[in-house]
Amino acid sequence: MSKKVAVILSGCGVFDGAEIHESVITLLRLDQRGAQVQCFAPDIPQMHVLNHLTGEAMPETRNVLVESARIARGQVKDVREANVDDFDALIIPGGFGAAKNLSSFATEGAACSVQADVLALAEAFAEAGKPVGLMCIAPAMAAKIYGPGVTCTIGNDADTAAALGKMGATHAECAVDDIIEDPARKLVTTPAYMLAQSISQAASGINKLVDRVLELTHQDQQ
Amino acid sequence: MSKKVAVILSGCGVFDGAEIHESVITLLRLDQRGAQVQCFAPDIPQMHVLNHLTGEAMPETRNVLVESARIARGQVKDVREANVDDFDALIIPGGFGAAKNLSSFATEGAACSVQADVLALAEAFAEAGKPVGLMCIAPAMAAKIYGPGVTCTIGNDADTAAALGKMGATHAECAVDDIIEDPARKLVTTPAYMLAQSISQAASGINKLVDRVLELTHQDQQ
Repeated sequence: MSKKVAVILSGCGVFDGAEIHESVITLLRLDQRGAQVQCFAPDIPQMHVLNHLTGEAMPETRNVLVESARIARGQVKDVREANVDDFDALIIPGGFGAAKNLSSFATEGAACSVQADVLALAEAFAEAGKPVGLMCIAPAMAAKIYGPGVTCTIGNDADTAAALGKMGATHAECAVDDIIEDPARKLVTTPAYMLAQSISQAASGINKLVDRVLELTHQDQQ
Repeated sequence: MSKKVAVILSGCGVFDGAEIHESVITLLRLDQRGAQVQCFAPDIPQMHVLNHLTGEAMPETRNVLVESARIARGQVKDVREANVDDFDALIIPGGFGAAKNLSSFATEGAACSVQADVLALAEAFAEAGKPVGLMCIAPAMAAKIYGPGVTCTIGNDADTAAALGKMGATHAECAVDDIIEDPARKLVTTPAYMLAQSISQAASGINKLVDRVLELTHQDQQ
């Protein structure tokens, strides 16, 4: 039986949405491993739109669900349509979209909140004992999903790690080609482009995360 | 010595720009093989902007270079800045952007033209005897770049193949996981999402294309 994995995207582009390389590498590895994938995204405006060539803000608005459809080749659903019972695991790629659209971590740091529908879905996976993979800056949501004591990584950035600590997470340093696992919670995290200097470095950790998340679906679920 | 490869992007999204999966898989394989990559795109407006969720046109304009920067994490240059002498090979991923922004094949078929700066760069690679890889619908530009008699593939779609024939190309049917090579011209093509039913199918042909293009850079150049 092929495993069913929900992937939450946060737009389309590293600076204001989902990191495209991380998202595509995730989809590729899941497909290569025989998993069935359904992408989701919240149907909300992006925090802002950045010109990825200049870094400047653009005077327009874009919708997270609509832009995520670019990465998903149209095959993406509103995250409110996702039912935890239909899936074996959840993965959330990074990019600033995870900290600007899925949560407010980019602007509020440790005082951030997670978008309500995204939080509800992620909490449902946690409560069901189903594995979750978070990469890059997405682990900034871990303490909001799992509560204090959850172990995760964003690589080795001291300020970001301190903010995660304030929120109740236990930060573990991690190399770009490795993963950190919280076994009790079945949470797997990897730094990806928080540390990666190249796309193949990012892929090394992401592939490991995807493989481990799929392995964890074979364990009995609570 | 690592090989230097120019990649021309055509926006960011399969329906109005560069196919994102094809572009990222190309960048990943090139990096895994130790090649140095520079992305380029024309600094022109997209033909149009499509909502990738609904397929409907959106009442806005986007710039091909600016949107391509999303795939390239900001590291993309105007195609007019590209000098063939700085590179060993050229690769152009597909997506409708190749037929809407890099050329007018989507609207004009066999009567299409190729965007002037893209054509000039591709012709320079052809004239220098340096290998070129075209995937998905991008081989629709092959006859414009190489002239009559060039052999290439867009998979097995009869109407599209007939249009390529009218332009002077010799179309060869090709499976999704394979490539077609025109040895005299050092042109390598693969169907990618013209045929792929999944991202790993697309990757199988794209990886073969990238590997062959890199192999061809080791041959003496004319």
